[in-house]
Amino acid sequence: MLIGKVVGSVVSTRKDEKLESLKLLVVQVHDQQGRAQDAYVVAADAVQAGTGDMVLYATGSSARQTELTENRPCDAVVMAVVDSWDLDGKNVYEKWSEA
Amino acid sequence: MLIGKVVGSVVSTRKDEKLESLKLLVVQVHDQQGRAQDAYVVAADAVQAGTGDMVLYATGSSARQTELTENRPCDAVVMAVVDSWDLDGKNVYEKWSEA
Amino acid sequence: MLIGKVVGSVVSTRKDEKLESLKLLVVQVHDQQGRAQDAYVVAADAVQAGTGDMVLYATGSSARQTELTENRPCDAVVMAVVDSWDLDGKNVYEKWSEA
Amino acid sequence: MLIGKVVGSVVSTRKDEKLESLKLLVVQVHDQQGRAQDAYVVAADAVQAGTGDMVLYATGSSARQTELTENRPCDAVVMAVVDSWDLDGKNVYEKWSEA
Amino acid sequence: MLIGKVVGSVVSTRKDEKLESLKLLVVQVHDQQGRAQDAYVVAADAVQAGTGDMVLYATGSSARQTELTENRPCDAVVMAVVDSWDLDGKNVYEKWSEA
Repeated sequence: MLIGKVVGSVVSTRKDEKLESLKLLVVQVHDQQGRAQDAYVVAADAVQAGTGDMVLYATGSSARQTELTENRPCDAVVMAVVDSWDLDGKNVYEKWSEA
Repeated sequence: MLIGKVVGSVVSTRKDEKLESLKLLVVQVHDQQGRAQDAYVVAADAVQAGTGDMVLYATGSSARQTELTENRPCDAVVMAVVDSWDLDGKNVYEKWSEA
Repeated sequence: MLIGKVVGSVVSTRKDEKLESLKLLVVQVHDQQGRAQDAYVVAADAVQAGTGDMVLYATGSSARQTELTENRPCDAVVMAVVDSWDLDGKNVYEKWSEA
Repeated sequence: MLIGKVVGSVVSTRKDEKLESLKLLVVQVHDQQGRAQDAYVVAADAVQAGTGDMVLYATGSSARQTELTENRPCDAVVMAVVDSWDLDGKNVYEKWSEA
Repeated sequence: MLIGKVVGSVVSTRKDEKLESLKLLVVQVHDQQGRAQDAYVVAADAVQAGTGDMVLYATGSSARQTELTENRPCDAVVMAVVDSWDLDGKNVYEKWSEA
């Protein structure tokens, strides 16, 4: 998994029928220091994440292991909203400190 | 998934029998700002996308989860035509504004 | 899938028994303009491709979806010989024009 | 698999139900010489690894082959704590020499 | 698959039980010209390869298709020792010429 931030969403009406009802988020990849990277992924939303949320996303066949994404042509899923993480014992990110 | 633009197609007569009847599109990868990247993929077309369409494509085993691509030796599929997407609340791409 | 050119082959006698009888090709990756890239892959040959042929190859679990490669420890397969492709309506490559 | 060092962990309360009870580690990728690389992965912990441990992690569908991660939306797993490794007959890393 | 050279091995006692008895090799990636690249992978050994052997390795789910690695949390396997390969009709590597 990698850490990302939800920065947008994609709308599509003409799509494979197996994609119906999936919300598709634009997630900007972040590094372990919490810095935005010059990379993104479009991922299905399994946790009702909102814009600005720091999240974890999984890719590949693992992205089809949520109830929502099972058997769907979906190769990335947001499956957790991040509360916090630490590196070498120091807090890097705290969701609630941003409120 | 990543965003791409359909820029061409590939023709092949000598191919594995499981590829029969799949249309193979050349898709140029785009970033979240809608800028063309120096990368491409050849993907099966599950949504009758046309040249110039902005699309989403999935890769890996997820590319075999459409009815069209099931059990085929195909590692990328165009499974949605993009109508629009936004970043940080601003519209980045709108299909119909280009008409 | 990506486009590549068959540039060689690999010989191995000591190998996993499930690899028996697979021909292993060295494929040089090409971009959508038909330019050789500084990357290669060794892929099983499912279409009796010859040296110099432009081909499509699939990777990952999709590489095991041909009859030839099913259940084998093989992560790349040449599953089509390319006749031609076009970009933005212009022909980029035509197999027979090289004869 | 690649070699990494456990440098932190991620906390999430809002997550897919299939992620319950998985400990999620931040692993910094290392090269074969034991040098830290500018890359990381968030991986499930299958071996109760601690901060500072050098570990092996697996990605993709293979990350779901431990009893702990089976059928979960998890694309990376720490499945071994490294005791030591050698290159060209020379010891590069020895866990106990650091005690 | 890619070509690599076996340059070392990794020892681990604390590991997932499904990894028991797998020998884990450090493989340095090589390009099609036989030049060492600045990349490596740790791969299970399915062919009793020795240090210095040029080998082929497969990654992803394909790495679990040998009898040895089936159902294991292992994402790379050495499944062939390379005897020789050629590029454009010229021999690039010959195992026995090094004896």
